[in-house]
Amino acid sequence: MPYASVHAKLENHFARLTKLEDVAAFLDWDTAAMMPPGGAGSRSEQTAALRAAHHELLSRPEVGSWLDEAEGMGAPEPWSAANLREMRRRWTHATAVPSDLVEALARAESVCETTWREARARSDFAMVRPRLAEVLGLVRQVARAKAERLGGSPYEALLDAYEPGGRCGRIDAAFAELEAFLPGFIAQALERQGGPPKVPPGPFPVSLQRELGLRLMGVLGFDFERGRLDVSHHPFCGGAQDDVRITTRYDEENFTSSLMGVLHETGHALYEMGLPMEWRWQPVGRARGMSVHESQSLLFEMQACRSRPFLTFAAPLMREAFGGEGPAWDADNLYRLYTRVRPDFIRVDADEVTYPAHVILRYRLEQALVGGAMEVDDLPAAWAEGMERLLGIVPPDDARGCLQDIHWYAGAWGYFPTYTLGAMTAAQLFDAACRADADVLPGIGRGDFSPLLRWLRASVHGKGSSLSTDELLTQATGRPLDPSVFESHLRRRYLG
Amino acid sequence: MPYASVHAKLENHFARLTKLEDVAAFLDWDTAAMMPPGGAGSRSEQTAALRAAHHELLSRPEVGSWLDEAEGMGAPEPWSAANLREMRRRWTHATAVPSDLVEALARAESVCETTWREARARSDFAMVRPRLAEVLGLVRQVARAKAERLGGSPYEALLDAYEPGGRCGRIDAAFAELEAFLPGFIAQALERQGGPPKVPPGPFPVSLQRELGLRLMGVLGFDFERGRLDVSHHPFCGGAQDDVRITTRYDEENFTSSLMGVLHETGHALYEMGLPMEWRWQPVGRARGMSVHESQSLLFEMQACRSRPFLTFAAPLMREAFGGEGPAWDADNLYRLYTRVRPDFIRVDADEVTYPAHVILRYRLEQALVGGAMEVDDLPAAWAEGMERLLGIVPPDDARGCLQDIHWYAGAWGYFPTYTLGAMTAAQLFDAACRADADVLPGIGRGDFSPLLRWLRASVHGKGSSLSTDELLTQATGRPLDPSVFESHLRRRYLG
Repeated sequence: MPYASVHAKLENHFARLTKLEDVAAFLDWDTAAMMPPGGAGSRSEQTAALRAAHHELLSRPEVGSWLDEAEGMGAPEPWSAANLREMRRRWTHATAVPSDLVEALARAESVCETTWREARARSDFAMVRPRLAEVLGLVRQVARAKAERLGGSPYEALLDAYEPGGRCGRIDAAFAELEAFLPGFIAQALERQGGPPKVPPGPFPVSLQRELGLRLMGVLGFDFERGRLDVSHHPFCGGAQDDVRITTRYDEENFTSSLMGVLHETGHALYEMGLPMEWRWQPVGRARGMSVHESQSLLFEMQACRSRPFLTFAAPLMREAFGGEGPAWDADNLYRLYTRVRPDFIRVDADEVTYPAHVILRYRLEQALVGGAMEVDDLPAAWAEGMERLLGIVPPDDARGCLQDIHWYAGAWGYFPTYTLGAMTAAQLFDAACRADADVLPGIGRGDFSPLLRWLRASVHGKGSSLSTDELLTQATGRPLDPSVFESHLRRRYLG
Repeated sequence: MPYASVHAKLENHFARLTKLEDVAAFLDWDTAAMMPPGGAGSRSEQTAALRAAHHELLSRPEVGSWLDEAEGMGAPEPWSAANLREMRRRWTHATAVPSDLVEALARAESVCETTWREARARSDFAMVRPRLAEVLGLVRQVARAKAERLGGSPYEALLDAYEPGGRCGRIDAAFAELEAFLPGFIAQALERQGGPPKVPPGPFPVSLQRELGLRLMGVLGFDFERGRLDVSHHPFCGGAQDDVRITTRYDEENFTSSLMGVLHETGHALYEMGLPMEWRWQPVGRARGMSVHESQSLLFEMQACRSRPFLTFAAPLMREAFGGEGPAWDADNLYRLYTRVRPDFIRVDADEVTYPAHVILRYRLEQALVGGAMEVDDLPAAWAEGMERLLGIVPPDDARGCLQDIHWYAGAWGYFPTYTLGAMTAAQLFDAACRADADVLPGIGRGDFSPLLRWLRASVHGKGSSLSTDELLTQATGRPLDPSVFESHLRRRYLG
């Protein structure tokens, strides 16, 4: 078969797959943002049927033959070659694991997640422990099966699903550096930050919070012809490139956290909206991986929107939105509020400085659990030990300890490191953007994100998955991941 | 293969199909109610990929062998037998038409529908005529291909997709009777109805209209744990049995039409919510067909909610919802408003009495077009002639004539008669319900729909597709479709 022909077959086939993935994304959005409670049981059946149809299509044996043939011929240009690599990666993930193991894990995850919800509510790890042990046992089998096909360690085979090509050596080195840096830095930052900032007094009606959120989304560059803002219990960014759905949740007593959450999700959304249109339905046209995705949300949230220039621009808009009065609404006070450091137990509520400690703990633990160096029974004690060592605090119960995150209980092993890889990547990209265009930071200060967005479109969004994460970062910033840029950012912001 | 085994295979297979149909229904709801405009292009690709996956699964050759085998063995009980019939019907529809013809028609429909939108806006039939002729040419081929496998005429083969087992002989007879009855009746009704009713003065804020709609949906029996009310340009009922999504659109100058639209869609929703749970994912557990579906919306709208007892109950709620004052809010005036007869050009705005004339016209025309007795070029003249004969008015332009409805341009041929079959069925079912339980009508007068709903659950909703439409109606009312019940209803309401 000539190259063009087998290539066209593969592109047609993967376009069908991508479209079904988009359908699944809209269904997930609906589940979180729209579905009434009575629909839950049927929804899981609908989702499973859709995923089964997708899996059957992806894992057809002829796809493997087409890939062999196309790879044997070589690709005519770099994007096609990268597309072929991404197709192969997806096909390998889909076919590496025997289907009875996939099904057993899906069932175990579903039971474990349900049990976890109750266990967390009761703060009773023992209740879910056997279910988690069952999940882990199956996850280890999946990891070994994938590692045989992908190369690398079993843990890396799981990581690869979220962070394609991710390697523990690189992560270990970066996290070791942060681990050495953080405890001393946190102590310094706490000492420097002074007394508590003033909290703007509420209530803040949801409709006004929503209006302000929409306004600032527009300032950041969100295209409302191609997206929406809605409400869900856990904020996320979903949908598809032409129709990005972000969500938030509102607290009428405190607008600051929801608002910053909206700007975080807007960062994710801008990445999706900026992916290369000419590769719209191909694997190479999709987002690079979770660390790059998180780097885009954190670049907008942490680097741009928690900066003094942005908060100086936004403070009067916030004050005006709620008719606020008094010193709590001063830009300086809002900046202090949005950069407050406080070691605490819950990852999702953590500030920029202590967040990596939560992630490093989880990364170490899941590596040990997947690799077999640790068992589920040891988790609460290991968690307490790690929190003590990294943040100097010990959670008073399991709900504020190893029961707080859904990931492991729902089967997402190998995901955690991408949060902090994303934070470091964000710092490095933002630093490069500011160097490349001197108007990036002043632009942010006057509510003009176009210089920043222009650079990101060219250097990150428009690249899709045509480069590896390392290549992407090296082309955009001149070097691979370098934790010192993140550390410099923290020093400037918290000790400067 | 033993019966149980082939039967289980079929049930598993059709359960997968049903779940994918539900996914498609949610996607369609999203398209109409949620999607931002920029998502339209990608959405049609996503929808097409989903339908292709469904079609491939349904039309697999082994499904035909399983059906042959299962039919050869006979079914253990009536529901399984009916399920087998419904599976066969779906499989036949899916496999009767060569896939290149299916694709050619899908492309032609898509182009024609787009052209139609512009042609309707310009009121220029000539603009879309060649596109419609192309669609009709392909529809005739599809109809012939399906008729060869299903038996019956080509038109009946199209009708069967909306009205399973529908036959023109029965429809012709019923419509001929109505056609004889209507012109004289309309004249009498117009004479009897007196001067125009008072129109409650607006504006009516959307939020208050929505609240009132939700309240009355609750009165009718809508379960908000298993459904939602949203906004779309064309009101409809979508989603799935456990999660029914209805929509409306609001006019701040006039609440009456949107409100009645909500009650109409609630009738559809109650049918879906009442389908037999134990056959949840099987073809036999789905709605019987479009005439029965429309009978449920029209039973609630026309029979129950435009009745004097209901409007006497609802008038104070309407007045209270909008803080209204004066005689326009009297129950008697609202009843006159909601039963006003006025021959006009647009089907969707037509009243209960003149509506069948619009449908009969379209039914005759599409029969002639599909059968080859008429060509697209003759449509505007035939339309004018029919309107003159049936309603005594001639549309001044094509926008108010043969361009007003999307159906033919989008490929929905054989759908129109189900509206009026539904209206007649609604009258017959409501009459039977009132005879079976003397509290049905008094219940409606005090806002208690439970006696009505109880009867419908037992006689219609809970039957799913276990009976043919004729059998369903005969078991529920003691006889097959009888237009005289509808005529009696009209006489009582408009001349009584």
